[in-house]
Amino acid sequence: MSAFPSALPEPDITPLRGGPVLRWGVLAPGRIAGAFVWALHQHTDQRVHAVASREPERARSFAATYGIARAHGSYEQLVADPDIDIVYVASPHSGHKAQALLAIAAGKHVLVEKPFALNAAEAREIAQAARAAGVFAMEAMWTRFLPQTVLIDRLLRDGVLGDPRLVVADFGVRFDFEPEGRIFSPALGGGALLDLAVYPLWFAHFVLGTPARVLATGVLAKTGVDGQTALVLTTDSGAQALVHTSLFVDTPNEAAISGTLARLQVESRFIAPGGFTLSSPTGEKRLRWSDSSALSGSGGLAYQATAAARHIAEGLTESPLHPLARSIAVLETIDAARRQVGYVP
Amino acid sequence: MSAFPSALPEPDITPLRGGPVLRWGVLAPGRIAGAFVWALHQHTDQRVHAVASREPERARSFAATYGIARAHGSYEQLVADPDIDIVYVASPHSGHKAQALLAIAAGKHVLVEKPFALNAAEAREIAQAARAAGVFAMEAMWTRFLPQTVLIDRLLRDGVLGDPRLVVADFGVRFDFEPEGRIFSPALGGGALLDLAVYPLWFAHFVLGTPARVLATGVLAKTGVDGQTALVLTTDSGAQALVHTSLFVDTPNEAAISGTLARLQVESRFIAPGGFTLSSPTGEKRLRWSDSSALSGSGGLAYQATAAARHIAEGLTESPLHPLARSIAVLETIDAARRQVGYVP
Repeated sequence: MSAFPSALPEPDITPLRGGPVLRWGVLAPGRIAGAFVWALHQHTDQRVHAVASREPERARSFAATYGIARAHGSYEQLVADPDIDIVYVASPHSGHKAQALLAIAAGKHVLVEKPFALNAAEAREIAQAARAAGVFAMEAMWTRFLPQTVLIDRLLRDGVLGDPRLVVADFGVRFDFEPEGRIFSPALGGGALLDLAVYPLWFAHFVLGTPARVLATGVLAKTGVDGQTALVLTTDSGAQALVHTSLFVDTPNEAAISGTLARLQVESRFIAPGGFTLSSPTGEKRLRWSDSSALSGSGGLAYQATAAARHIAEGLTESPLHPLARSIAVLETIDAARRQVGYVP
Repeated sequence: MSAFPSALPEPDITPLRGGPVLRWGVLAPGRIAGAFVWALHQHTDQRVHAVASREPERARSFAATYGIARAHGSYEQLVADPDIDIVYVASPHSGHKAQALLAIAAGKHVLVEKPFALNAAEAREIAQAARAAGVFAMEAMWTRFLPQTVLIDRLLRDGVLGDPRLVVADFGVRFDFEPEGRIFSPALGGGALLDLAVYPLWFAHFVLGTPARVLATGVLAKTGVDGQTALVLTTDSGAQALVHTSLFVDTPNEAAISGTLARLQVESRFIAPGGFTLSSPTGEKRLRWSDSSALSGSGGLAYQATAAARHIAEGLTESPLHPLARSIAVLETIDAARRQVGYVP
């Protein structure tokens, strides 16, 4: 049994400047695409070279706003652009598969927004196509690349928490009910599981590995998408994760791990740069870590892009930090949960 | 839609001094009985007049330690003692039913340690006997009577949280595995559900009412008692409670409510006097409340005793704050969970 550490190690963070640089193409300009481009240009040497929208005016306006050289009026044009190394797929998730396959077929690397696809079958299809083409593919699970997560990963690997028996994580956001809105649309892959739960479910998989059993219960919104769901994931060893998501209420967006040697509480919002506290089991000893970099909120999107550039420079076709198998496994959990709550598209 | 409050109201706390005084008899001196007597004598006008153990020397030693006038060598003697108004049943829970019924048959009021009994059927039997005898009966769910809980109850009733859609609460304590110990003994009603989960399950029932559905999954300890269990309780309206308990790890012992108008986080350990934070849904506005009384830890056991004395003086046979129906309903949830995890005594 290890003693509670006297100090936390320094996280082994990939420097955001000075490494390999990719020329990025952004497919589908929207809110998340804007945040991503801003974070890259503000905090990294990565450069966005082109943006594409099916509405050319939208692409031009986005390019002007974010200082992007080229605006393409079709996705086909962007993936064919010889000056693009990697395509960032930022469309609603109902478009991820088709657009990722389009980019892969054109020989481009891809970074695909969360969730990687609408379900595990689609995710496997993208992964197989990328492997066959020998290109890099990754889900844009930016939380995995934040300094706090890099450090948590190290504490887990070093055994500082002992045997992690329990993970609790949540992500609920209250949405006003709009029957026509994307989040409530079955056709666009709406619902809390795909949109929000992908984060706490990823965290549960990250800490405990792929669960052997998934138990989910919840209620549907009036449009038939999952409105609120509680999940219990159980591993073969009996470790458990409790995950909660909702479109009806804002929840704390915290994540906690109870291990046999220590507990770890990631502060709200755990998905973004922040901090965490490592505690001895009963809480009498505590070590707090806080992200002191200038990157906060969606500025943290920068880390995943720099990591992708480095992975690609190393000749990798997927990230060892967030491999495709993990994206697929999380979608398998979401598939199971959607079946159990009665939302089968 | 109400605005987020500018300040918290004062909790309407029953004064610990100056009200009606009962003469208490303690049945089965152990750790919790010692803490209870100490809290009463330290913080209230309530007085413990007698203690009983089947081992007379144990009763005498306990009486000497805590300044109790009489030490009885049998439970029968104590319940027959004409100078006792109320019997506090502090034995392991496998003895609660027999001992509560003994005291009730002797015409005494009873305060019975948590859990009220081994299962809902036993709890109903005690409740029926108490009603038939016209005596006061209550489960010693001391957390319900703490100032923080009194204030949370008021915030809930005033609608400050809006519609509470989600409760998350936990209580896990790591026990070294001792096959012969009470906590691991099927014969003594061991397991985490009865011993620990009774608190977060009570909290879930307190906030959301009796659930329509209980989903439980977990693993048994080697002796066959429930070792770790996750529960999802769902009400008819689709509100959910996630509860977790474990004998394998210490967990934060926090409780949180997500409502449509506000969130409330009870600090660790939520079962004891402490504090809570009320937040606007996304967390930008916060009001913190902290218990500034001298009572901390098990000193907080005092409140339930003073409340019982007041209830009895008012001619009540159960507490409107923690009625017998609630104790029974929580045990129904535990019964269902024990069945689902495969621990059926």
